[in-house]
Amino acid sequence: MTYCVGIAVRDGLILISDTRTNAGLDNISTYRKMHMLAETGGYLIFCMSAGNLSVTQHVLGQLAEGLPAISPDECPRRIANMPSMFRVAQLVGEAVRAAGSELKPALRAAGVNAGISLIVGGRIGDGPIKLYLIYDAGNFIECCPETPFLQIGATAYGKPILDRAMNYHTSLDEAVKVGLLSFDSTIRSDLSVGLPLDLVVIPADRTREVIRRRIERDDPYFTDLSARWSMLLNQSRAAIPDPPFLAPRSYGSSSEASPYE
Amino acid sequence: MTYCVGIAVRDGLILISDTRTNAGLDNISTYRKMHMLAETGGYLIFCMSAGNLSVTQHVLGQLAEGLPAISPDECPRRIANMPSMFRVAQLVGEAVRAAGSELKPALRAAGVNAGISLIVGGRIGDGPIKLYLIYDAGNFIECCPETPFLQIGATAYGKPILDRAMNYHTSLDEAVKVGLLSFDSTIRSDLSVGLPLDLVVIPADRTREVIRRRIERDDPYFTDLSARWSMLLNQSRAAIPDPPFLAPRSYGSSSEASPYE
Repeated sequence: MTYCVGIAVRDGLILISDTRTNAGLDNISTYRKMHMLAETGGYLIFCMSAGNLSVTQHVLGQLAEGLPAISPDECPRRIANMPSMFRVAQLVGEAVRAAGSELKPALRAAGVNAGISLIVGGRIGDGPIKLYLIYDAGNFIECCPETPFLQIGATAYGKPILDRAMNYHTSLDEAVKVGLLSFDSTIRSDLSVGLPLDLVVIPADRTREVIRRRIERDDPYFTDLSARWSMLLNQSRAAIPDPPFLAPRSYGSSSEASPYE
Repeated sequence: MTYCVGIAVRDGLILISDTRTNAGLDNISTYRKMHMLAETGGYLIFCMSAGNLSVTQHVLGQLAEGLPAISPDECPRRIANMPSMFRVAQLVGEAVRAAGSELKPALRAAGVNAGISLIVGGRIGDGPIKLYLIYDAGNFIECCPETPFLQIGATAYGKPILDRAMNYHTSLDEAVKVGLLSFDSTIRSDLSVGLPLDLVVIPADRTREVIRRRIERDDPYFTDLSARWSMLLNQSRAAIPDPPFLAPRSYGSSSEASPYE
């Protein structure tokens, strides 16, 4: 499995991915799921991937080679030739469909799950930062301010904290912290998601530097965050009063409140 | 969808289920998923259900009627004739298989998801409290002290808090509270799970009364628990330091730490 989150808030873009892949529980490896699609000529575009590793690599390889030109006298179509982030998402979607057409019949015949999903985010020149989720059929959605995050892979364990804490006006620092808390919950509940994590932060303010960082197993900040969060959750839980319906004094009246009798 | 949790700690058994069912997002109803299987003659056995509602009701109806006798001169086999909780789980599993054999071919032909899963818990006479998860194929597992809870339905959103906070020695009060927090997270992240909740508590100490309670939408304790938890999570999050790698002073060194260059 995999867990990747893309967060698009007012102050910028955050991408976080784990690095664990498994083909069965006895075959666990570390693979990068954070991929640079373009970083020259004003392009700064990343892609995170979940699902079948060979299909994903096929898509990335095809994008690096370039997709076939529309007419014979043109060049192959590459990310770094696309005039907009929307066209980038379209090209990635096309590559996903092409890989599916080529690989899926044999994979399905072999009983292998061939599905993938991708999160693509970045910017071109002076254009706005954009974030897309590309589905297995090559269709895609764009992240919007009302729900400023997109997830792929094992999405559910880390969704409650994002639902509670993330909005479009969350600061970049805070959004990175919440994103990492979402990973902490997921790593705790899902063996198939694991450290190290890859983090990319593209601030909307172009005077601030782009961050690319691998958060290793022994990363002091993540270790501290995980320990503090665990302790604070325990304290919070302890601070909530016990249910009144189990108190000895309420036993006599419990059956009156029962809908079962 | 549905969310049900069964918790078997040293001090007793807790069952909690939601009541929302949906056939499409435009057809949402309230159905009880907490069912009494037996409550006379020393039997106290409940069942919670997730999945196809018609298949579930078929199973419950068949259990109420009794499953066909093994030999012609015997009575139909009912929950309240079973000599042990293990035999109860076997009988429920058999009813699940029988309903599947009868209903699934037509349901599958119609493209309807026919799967169900059940949590069965309770006690017989002076015997120990037992808790089982019955799968769609009628096979089942028993809850064990190492992981003292079983979930069915939309299990992932509410699993992190159970993973963190629940162990076999958690008190009954605390376990009910943690169970309700698990529902609070699930209800917040999954529209298909909703109040009211049904709660059953069977204390291991037989001098304590069995609790059966419906937690309605306006239940003061659950409303307070939800509001406090939200506030405490926000405070906890705020109490965790911001990531150091975004601080302006670290910008200069970020690219040195990057695995991508």
